[in-house]
Amino acid sequence: MPLSPPVLDRLRTLFPGDALLTAPADCAPYGRDDSKREALPDAVVLPTTHAQVLDLVRLCREHRLPLFARGRGTGTTGAAVPLGGGLVVGFERMNKILAIDADNRVAVVEPGVLNGDLQAAVAAHGFFWPPDPASAATCTVGGNIACNAGGPRAVKHGATRDNVLAVRAVAGSGEDFRFGKATSKAATGYDLARLMVGSEGTLALVTEATLKLVPLASARATLRATYVDIETAAAAVARIMAQPVTPCALEFMDDEALRLARLHGGEAIPVAGALLLIEVDGEADALPAAAEALAHAARGAGLIDLAIASDPRDVEAIWAARKALSPSLRSIAPKKINEDVVVPVSRLPALVAGLKAISARHGIPIVNFGHAGNGNVHVNLLYHPDDPAQAAQAPACLSAVFDLVLSLDGTLSGEHGIGLAKRPFMRRALDPVAIELMRRIKTQFDPDGILNPGKLLPD
Amino acid sequence: MPLSPPVLDRLRTLFPGDALLTAPADCAPYGRDDSKREALPDAVVLPTTHAQVLDLVRLCREHRLPLFARGRGTGTTGAAVPLGGGLVVGFERMNKILAIDADNRVAVVEPGVLNGDLQAAVAAHGFFWPPDPASAATCTVGGNIACNAGGPRAVKHGATRDNVLAVRAVAGSGEDFRFGKATSKAATGYDLARLMVGSEGTLALVTEATLKLVPLASARATLRATYVDIETAAAAVARIMAQPVTPCALEFMDDEALRLARLHGGEAIPVAGALLLIEVDGEADALPAAAEALAHAARGAGLIDLAIASDPRDVEAIWAARKALSPSLRSIAPKKINEDVVVPVSRLPALVAGLKAISARHGIPIVNFGHAGNGNVHVNLLYHPDDPAQAAQAPACLSAVFDLVLSLDGTLSGEHGIGLAKRPFMRRALDPVAIELMRRIKTQFDPDGILNPGKLLPD
Repeated sequence: MPLSPPVLDRLRTLFPGDALLTAPADCAPYGRDDSKREALPDAVVLPTTHAQVLDLVRLCREHRLPLFARGRGTGTTGAAVPLGGGLVVGFERMNKILAIDADNRVAVVEPGVLNGDLQAAVAAHGFFWPPDPASAATCTVGGNIACNAGGPRAVKHGATRDNVLAVRAVAGSGEDFRFGKATSKAATGYDLARLMVGSEGTLALVTEATLKLVPLASARATLRATYVDIETAAAAVARIMAQPVTPCALEFMDDEALRLARLHGGEAIPVAGALLLIEVDGEADALPAAAEALAHAARGAGLIDLAIASDPRDVEAIWAARKALSPSLRSIAPKKINEDVVVPVSRLPALVAGLKAISARHGIPIVNFGHAGNGNVHVNLLYHPDDPAQAAQAPACLSAVFDLVLSLDGTLSGEHGIGLAKRPFMRRALDPVAIELMRRIKTQFDPDGILNPGKLLPD
Repeated sequence: MPLSPPVLDRLRTLFPGDALLTAPADCAPYGRDDSKREALPDAVVLPTTHAQVLDLVRLCREHRLPLFARGRGTGTTGAAVPLGGGLVVGFERMNKILAIDADNRVAVVEPGVLNGDLQAAVAAHGFFWPPDPASAATCTVGGNIACNAGGPRAVKHGATRDNVLAVRAVAGSGEDFRFGKATSKAATGYDLARLMVGSEGTLALVTEATLKLVPLASARATLRATYVDIETAAAAVARIMAQPVTPCALEFMDDEALRLARLHGGEAIPVAGALLLIEVDGEADALPAAAEALAHAARGAGLIDLAIASDPRDVEAIWAARKALSPSLRSIAPKKINEDVVVPVSRLPALVAGLKAISARHGIPIVNFGHAGNGNVHVNLLYHPDDPAQAAQAPACLSAVFDLVLSLDGTLSGEHGIGLAKRPFMRRALDPVAIELMRRIKTQFDPDGILNPGKLLPD
């Protein structure tokens, strides 16, 4: 059902000139995300002010028009895809950094600021914002908030939810509100700011966020440890996390991931059952002791080799394996299903063993790497959609992956969110009463269900 | 309106023997908290199982009986006081530590576990749970969750909300649910666990919590810095928080607090415009560099003296000023209103200056100390309730304190919560739409308003 002329008139008034897109060719790019799903919205609006967003939501509510918030479409779950049509609100023009307040360790931003632009701006003041997804250069802070984005630094500094102090937002009801202050502590009512984080645009549209900044360390050391198998690597992860020097990254790759990275990146990338990348940051004087504490924890049964680097070129070499991985994944199969499941750290060996069994059973290669310190594993199912046997197996294989994760007391997503991709598994993953409470919360913020319908919560 | 005989019969069946108290003399101790408010409940029940709590909430909902959750009554806001009568559910018998899982850095506990008992148990595994309120020896984890308790360690490790991963709970609707996993990352639906933290028993009764543990550091150094005034001390706080070595405590006392501590604790306690206590923990080898980084940041205009201690007796001497304070407060005035306001760190000087003006205007001494790194100040109004002039001024004085805090973009509470004490100020502090959204959320969890009625949210 296309937009009625009166609605289009209102939209034109609200979003003059090129702030309103209606031609399908203009709208189509706003209908896709990195899940490779797509749908054509009826129109796209590109607000520059909070007031426009408020008017937009009220208009959409009045006409029961579905409204889909969008950063830059780097999400991997389809959360920003306007399934069924409606309006996309793209936040790319609300991209101002409103304040960087070093004394209070906060930045105030509009939602369309790119994560990478924010990092560059606050680095000039000696700070960073902890969320550092691989897409940092092209993803927005608003999108990070929507899906509770993480990245390697989350092991020390938490994910997005741990680093948002306050929001300004417009609920689906057409009411706007502020919640939170530029303070790192508060016990004044239900925490509506944290409730927004991870809600994927289903409750409210965030138009401003106050972010917690962390001082940049002056030095960094990187360790690369290889192990005979994932069991001994996971035991090392547990030892590392049980001692007081928290690493600022604790990444892992399984044997298959290493094999592929080596194919692509060359023989400097080691052969092993598993690899850990361990980084620690701090004051230069304190770093040798900190690195040694981590090295001590990394040593143990199953260790093949341990290398410590602080020279930037040596660090680059250590990260080479991880960076060689993404292109190599693309080279072996045209289709990749990348899920970011989480399990308790101690269940990592059972997860990887179970994934190997699932891979063999379904004839679909599975490659695993990710944020070991959080138990957050990127499980990559690699297959040829043109191979009928593999294509037919893929859904059952994915379903088996989630069953495995849930049997290990894990959860569907650590940092990508649910969107469309994992919505069919929400009933398996969550307590039915918890889902029902979420649905009731949704109804209070968005009584007519106009915000991102068909996402996150199951039918 | 006393409990009807059929309800009493049901309660007796549910809570046999001494698990049900009905005699006023038995019930009275369960009607008080550390706000010095009190009310007599109609009965007190002391469950030992989740199933009992579930049956209890259903019974209360059926009969529209108000139900007040209680840990050990150490709260300072009246949040646990059964105003208007009804049932108190005391969690003191649900005090089991269900699991300490070192590999996954979590503990699973019942809500009645004392914070101090938990700390002792997890310390044996090399861990601590960050919330460390002054009442740790006698307060419960359930109470910590209810009010988002903090303490000195919050400056490095966050308050309770940052350290609860999962809950089991019974909503006021009589539905029980679990939410969250023993993982430090999750992006699977709205975060109901964090929503429970700080909700003061108004949404659900938490019957089990999965807590995030942190490894104990092997060494600690303590610095004491004195400054000519609060402005220069606050500037030092900003410098300390802007460099990468995060202290594990950053406490301050104003001039009046120091003067009183010295009266009680002796002349070893320095005379100064403000004092900072700065602690840093870590590996022994790394500690001198870390302490020097903090000392460097502490130095600057206005510094009178800086002392660094690592010997436990010297550390004790440094903390003596802070510890001498509480008894001295009691000695100068029988009545103390202790508010735990928060402002952005850079506003601390304006806060303290404003508090001095308010104190002079109302003729009520105000003494300030607290968690400077979080901008979280314990503002103590000291007065004689028998002095009619002071007693008459106290409410206006308190009101002026909150007006000041809000004018500095701060908030009512950092770690005590709202309860009864700060409820009259909620409309001043929060956006009306945010309050309305909280009220709607409350209605979804507790449709008949049986859980802790008259608390937290304004009328």
